[in-house]
Amino acid sequence: MIILGIDPGLQKTGWGIIHSSGHALQFIGCGLIKTNPADSLAQRLSHLHIELCKIAKGEGMVSSSGGAGLIGLKPDEAAVEETFVNRNPASALKLGQARGVCLSVPALYDIPVAEYAANKIKKSIVGAGHADKAQMGMMVRTLLPACGAIGVDEADALAVAICHAHHGAWDQKIGIA
Amino acid sequence: MIILGIDPGLQKTGWGIIHSSGHALQFIGCGLIKTNPADSLAQRLSHLHIELCKIAKGEGMVSSSGGAGLIGLKPDEAAVEETFVNRNPASALKLGQARGVCLSVPALYDIPVAEYAANKIKKSIVGAGHADKAQMGMMVRTLLPACGAIGVDEADALAVAICHAHHGAWDQKIGIA
Repeated sequence: MIILGIDPGLQKTGWGIIHSSGHALQFIGCGLIKTNPADSLAQRLSHLHIELCKIAKGEGMVSSSGGAGLIGLKPDEAAVEETFVNRNPASALKLGQARGVCLSVPALYDIPVAEYAANKIKKSIVGAGHADKAQMGMMVRTLLPACGAIGVDEADALAVAICHAHHGAWDQKIGIA
Repeated sequence: MIILGIDPGLQKTGWGIIHSSGHALQFIGCGLIKTNPADSLAQRLSHLHIELCKIAKGEGMVSSSGGAGLIGLKPDEAAVEETFVNRNPASALKLGQARGVCLSVPALYDIPVAEYAANKIKKSIVGAGHADKAQMGMMVRTLLPACGAIGVDEADALAVAICHAHHGAWDQKIGIA
């Protein structure tokens, strides 16, 4: 199964694609979608939409140390971190706008989108609900050595994809899926 | 100029299209996009995206008392109410997600999107920054008699379109545009 993880943000959205087969995970690609702060909010969101469409169609370009190349694999499922809403309403609105685009795009391509709470993702990656960015990044690189030296947003995106892979495998084992 | 006004919401998004020529306004059409609460959040947002694309392309269906018919007119410009963020973060996030889709779609079709504060819209419609829903609806129906008996969300969408028409005419007069 090809899993797309997304870490939404207006300024930069991280994405990561992995292949999961049982408990075996394989890095496929990851990248960062940046929007231009000089553009209008609507233009920035539409840019995010257009770039995510390419990824949902399997036309994502690897932008990290993995080398610049076409992914060529259409995701079967997608996963996004649930947003922690105990922050100020202005940032919740801002993040919500980018998140709305990130959730709608996979669904436009009939890719189911799962949402995971941040502590569930952390637990799935480092074995504890509390972990800092550095620990998370290190564990993602350990689980997916082929990903190379990736940025924080790409690591977060791959982390939610890994979390989805683990829960998918678990759900199969207990017969939910 | 054909102006599209949008009143974003996850459950229901109101939209309204008017024709503006100087100070003369003409009702073209309006409607409501509803999403199914039984669907996943991603599915609801993608449904909103798909329906808004039809409207941006001039394929919106009039769903109010105006009778069911195709609009057939592609908007030149779009306007959305600025969100008042002094509410709880959870609702800001929820609204933000629908709003992100509503802002990105016109931009995908190269339609510029303007944002107006709620009190600016009210002032533009009823002449005061404070007005209740009933007053606003009545004034929208007075300014656009052809709209008939429309719902609150459609009236709000038409109100932001009227506000944009007024500010466009004013900006032309003082030589900004």
